[in-house]
Amino acid sequence: MTLVLTAIEAAATIAFATSGILEAARKRLDAVGVCMVAGLAAFGGGTLRDVLLDRRPFFWVAHAGWLWGLLALCALAMLFMRARHFAPTERAMQWPDALGLGLFTASGTQVALDSGAPAIVAVLMGVVTAVFGGVLRDIVCNEIPSAFRDHRPYAVCAFAGAWVLVAAQALGAADWLGLLAAAAVTALLRALALITGYTLPRWSPGD
Amino acid sequence: MTLVLTAIEAAATIAFATSGILEAARKRLDAVGVCMVAGLAAFGGGTLRDVLLDRRPFFWVAHAGWLWGLLALCALAMLFMRARHFAPTERAMQWPDALGLGLFTASGTQVALDSGAPAIVAVLMGVVTAVFGGVLRDIVCNEIPSAFRDHRPYAVCAFAGAWVLVAAQALGAADWLGLLAAAAVTALLRALALITGYTLPRWSPGD
Amino acid sequence: MTLVLTAIEAAATIAFATSGILEAARKRLDAVGVCMVAGLAAFGGGTLRDVLLDRRPFFWVAHAGWLWGLLALCALAMLFMRARHFAPTERAMQWPDALGLGLFTASGTQVALDSGAPAIVAVLMGVVTAVFGGVLRDIVCNEIPSAFRDHRPYAVCAFAGAWVLVAAQALGAADWLGLLAAAAVTALLRALALITGYTLPRWSPGD
Repeated sequence: MTLVLTAIEAAATIAFATSGILEAARKRLDAVGVCMVAGLAAFGGGTLRDVLLDRRPFFWVAHAGWLWGLLALCALAMLFMRARHFAPTERAMQWPDALGLGLFTASGTQVALDSGAPAIVAVLMGVVTAVFGGVLRDIVCNEIPSAFRDHRPYAVCAFAGAWVLVAAQALGAADWLGLLAAAAVTALLRALALITGYTLPRWSPGD
Repeated sequence: MTLVLTAIEAAATIAFATSGILEAARKRLDAVGVCMVAGLAAFGGGTLRDVLLDRRPFFWVAHAGWLWGLLALCALAMLFMRARHFAPTERAMQWPDALGLGLFTASGTQVALDSGAPAIVAVLMGVVTAVFGGVLRDIVCNEIPSAFRDHRPYAVCAFAGAWVLVAAQALGAADWLGLLAAAAVTALLRALALITGYTLPRWSPGD
Repeated sequence: MTLVLTAIEAAATIAFATSGILEAARKRLDAVGVCMVAGLAAFGGGTLRDVLLDRRPFFWVAHAGWLWGLLALCALAMLFMRARHFAPTERAMQWPDALGLGLFTASGTQVALDSGAPAIVAVLMGVVTAVFGGVLRDIVCNEIPSAFRDHRPYAVCAFAGAWVLVAAQALGAADWLGLLAAAAVTALLRALALITGYTLPRWSPGD
């Protein structure tokens, strides 16, 4: 069970890091920029959450091996893109990204609840954990964050999933059950949004 | 008296949040982006100050009701803009914004002085509290912060007002008097700048 | 010896601040923007490192005189650029900047090692200290950070130099020797890159 969880978490982190590598490559950044943007995308959300909650050490300080893994991933990706003149498409990344969204939402919300945050703050921290890696990635690459502009549900799925965890805890469910339900609801909502192509309702201010 | 203060503070926070909603709407962000940018504009300055001073809990963690208020404000604003095809003008926001500038400068400077910061650092923290919500709002919306580019006095008013508080404390004035004087000086300077259309002197580097 | 070190550190901080003043002037920011961007460029990297390591007080809180120095530097620079219609060229700034890169890398890595960080984290903190002032400067000025895009070695020199310090400590060398070696290696690598015009290998994703 733990092995499955670790495997999924690794897949999610790789999906987030890869989204950073792809955006950095599109923006023609150099090798340093690719590694930095990949690192921000993979660890930025959790790090921002920990700064806001004043938790130390960060995940990537306690488990510094992940930094080596990130460097290796970036090096491999750059070699591969060079050799094959090929870049992984954004579409291929959508599914591990949806899984990562679910996992990071669940873990981020749980961490905030454990530190005694009120429900709405814990939900916000879950969303920050899952979404702000991508937000920081986009800010550094001089784009308006796609999570704020895309009109396809992304942060909204995390928001809904985080409330599932809060509700599960309030009802006295086992921790693992709440985490699983939150991650599953988030990932499924995201997958549903991707499959149906649903977009959030638009409005046209001032016209 | 406390009721008046709370009412003014609420008006200021709403003014800052509304500036975020307006900028998000101009940039055609989705509902998530509107809420996030509004939240950054309203709470970003104070949160950055608290991170720098290592103070916890944040205002919006201790008083989580404000987060609900923010969500309600954003929902109302989006419904209203949709129904009426109408957006509140930036001009209408200038006056509560000037009040907010004064209040946030005074409270931010006081918080830093209480934590034992030197005078220049406390003044900087007052400016950060009042101005960096808007700076973060503009960075996320992929703009150069208007506070850094506008040539109309904004941060400069906060800078002057913060020194009033430091001077009042050094002279042994009562806390409430210093806070009131700092907020009033900041807001009046800003109002004066708006009325007269004064701009900071320009220079032309390299030509 | 201490005097020499302080003089070099002051020169490095001035070089970093000047890079901020120049970029702010190019972007036609106002006086507030010039001071803020200069401050971010000079103190942003070390401050971000201290936030990540949870160290207080910041350098510019403990030595608040540097904030006055920064304000004076900005005022002088603006007066000078106005009187002479002249801006210091980026080329003239390259050499103190290379020195600053070396010094900030060495001091940042040492601080992280002292706080018990693993080697790879300490190296990353050294790079953050030296490079993220410029990164924040570029983000505020709405540019993709030049450190991530330039293809000329910059952060890579800091990365190499930081490993020198880690190696020196692992071998039991005296602290001052490790610091000196790290700063020298970083600055020399950067100087070499500037002289030879070497660029990091490029790759072309997807074409």
